[in-house]
Amino acid sequence: MGLRLTILGCHSAAPKSNAQPSAQLLEIDGHVFLIDCGEGTQLALRKNKIKFSRIKQIFISHLHGDHYFGLFGLIATFNLLGRTEPLDIFGPKGIKEIILLSLKLGESWTKFPLRFHELTQDLSHVIFENNRVKVSTLPLDHRIYTNGFLFEQKTKERPLDVSAAAELGVSSAYFNKAKQGHWVKDESGKEVDFKLITKEPTPNISYAYCSDTAYHKTLEPLIKGVTLLYHESTFLDQHESLCQTTKHSTAKQAARIAEKAQVGHLLLGHYSARYKNLEDFKSEAQEIFSSTFLAREGAIFVIEDRARLELTEI
Amino acid sequence: MGLRLTILGCHSAAPKSNAQPSAQLLEIDGHVFLIDCGEGTQLALRKNKIKFSRIKQIFISHLHGDHYFGLFGLIATFNLLGRTEPLDIFGPKGIKEIILLSLKLGESWTKFPLRFHELTQDLSHVIFENNRVKVSTLPLDHRIYTNGFLFEQKTKERPLDVSAAAELGVSSAYFNKAKQGHWVKDESGKEVDFKLITKEPTPNISYAYCSDTAYHKTLEPLIKGVTLLYHESTFLDQHESLCQTTKHSTAKQAARIAEKAQVGHLLLGHYSARYKNLEDFKSEAQEIFSSTFLAREGAIFVIEDRARLELTEI
Repeated sequence: MGLRLTILGCHSAAPKSNAQPSAQLLEIDGHVFLIDCGEGTQLALRKNKIKFSRIKQIFISHLHGDHYFGLFGLIATFNLLGRTEPLDIFGPKGIKEIILLSLKLGESWTKFPLRFHELTQDLSHVIFENNRVKVSTLPLDHRIYTNGFLFEQKTKERPLDVSAAAELGVSSAYFNKAKQGHWVKDESGKEVDFKLITKEPTPNISYAYCSDTAYHKTLEPLIKGVTLLYHESTFLDQHESLCQTTKHSTAKQAARIAEKAQVGHLLLGHYSARYKNLEDFKSEAQEIFSSTFLAREGAIFVIEDRARLELTEI
Repeated sequence: MGLRLTILGCHSAAPKSNAQPSAQLLEIDGHVFLIDCGEGTQLALRKNKIKFSRIKQIFISHLHGDHYFGLFGLIATFNLLGRTEPLDIFGPKGIKEIILLSLKLGESWTKFPLRFHELTQDLSHVIFENNRVKVSTLPLDHRIYTNGFLFEQKTKERPLDVSAAAELGVSSAYFNKAKQGHWVKDESGKEVDFKLITKEPTPNISYAYCSDTAYHKTLEPLIKGVTLLYHESTFLDQHESLCQTTKHSTAKQAARIAEKAQVGHLLLGHYSARYKNLEDFKSEAQEIFSSTFLAREGAIFVIEDRARLELTEI
């Protein structure tokens, strides 16, 4: 198990048959998260053969239509499919009001619990945590209140080096303590460094979703060293002047923040409809940050070998 | 010019790649109306190469998601495309509140006037009229407040029979009066029947959209003799028992009302996802009403020869 990211939609603005608005399905250690939900997301889920019932948490970055207009229909479909499991929806204040209004107008209350977690803070904070993954907000700089999301695999226990522990005379009563990174004692009562009887754990995988946003310096420390950064690149450098008013980024700016934050890999998306050749985004970014990938509808990115944290597109 | 109906979506419930929720584009004498607007309607409009700017009026039958969840995105796209022309939206009370809330939350006010016409009445009444077409509501029997819509070509002038008028000695000063169906006078002051100096006008075309509804007897006089009736047939007769709770109809019931109202042609749609073979709907209905057609995504139905009112699928 590792990370598996399915791109359901990665274009800005109006949906077209070959250009769907934002939506991604993220799996970390088997836990499934839906990030953004533009119109047509449920169709994209079907196309990618994703079981609807696996989705337990939905994270909405902001309330521009191309990031959440598919949520009304997805909730209706969950209901039609007989869902009983709770659904957690994280998103800006207002999302609860409009979803509940749609249910009220249609007299179509869900038969499963809808739990809203409305976001209003301007500082990064943890909004979800389970036994394997922690999710925090990444405040972004857009025309309306917008958050990116940081998904982090939780720190794992250090694997025990059984023969080293036996050799140094550490009793099994101390094993858990050592695995959690604490010094222990040998049979004679002498202190033993946990590093001597445990191995380095495989690195944690982390994923940062940053869309929509202008170039936002404040983001750097928050996404420092993440394994994979998805950063919007609505424009190419030649249209950089449009970024100020629209509060979007260029591929170059996305690459610059990837480089400064020393991330593992950069994934570009949220392309403006004006561009025909997406490869131009990649080549522009790669001049600054070489490990750049392009999001495309239906593409799947995986990190299987956690020791190497290598990203591959399948 | 005549009637041209493009089926954008004709299935019930959740959208699938080969089964889109309700939406139709109706053209009468070049005037374009959008009827219902399920999720994905803007994609279907693109697929069918329909210019978005031609849509001036949208009619929403009821506030179940499969009939209007595409409206949020369509309005956003109108805005992106730089629309300045007003847009009229007819639909149940509540539609204004939810559309305005979506615009407020996204801080995405339209640059064109949005004019809402909220419907609350339980009796058929005229809601729109221009120089060629009149639109009335058709109150239906569904789980929530629902209207069908009746589109009627306005009565045309009677074409003048110039030689008959000359023969009977009617002065050209009387021609307009006769064309509008009034008796006139000849040179000697004698009364002349307008029918003697004018011809029968070609028949008016009318289209009734009835979805969603249970079998609704009250509908009969309102749709008496319409050229084309679209009537929902969510179920086949074998599942008639489901109609009571869901307030839907079977193909047989749709055919029965078509027969009783002596309509020209019947078009079936809003099929439940449980059925694989849509031909079963047609054969069930044709046992009662022979001129039955099946709506299918992308199908276009036209009445070009108004004298004959023949419906053809192109």
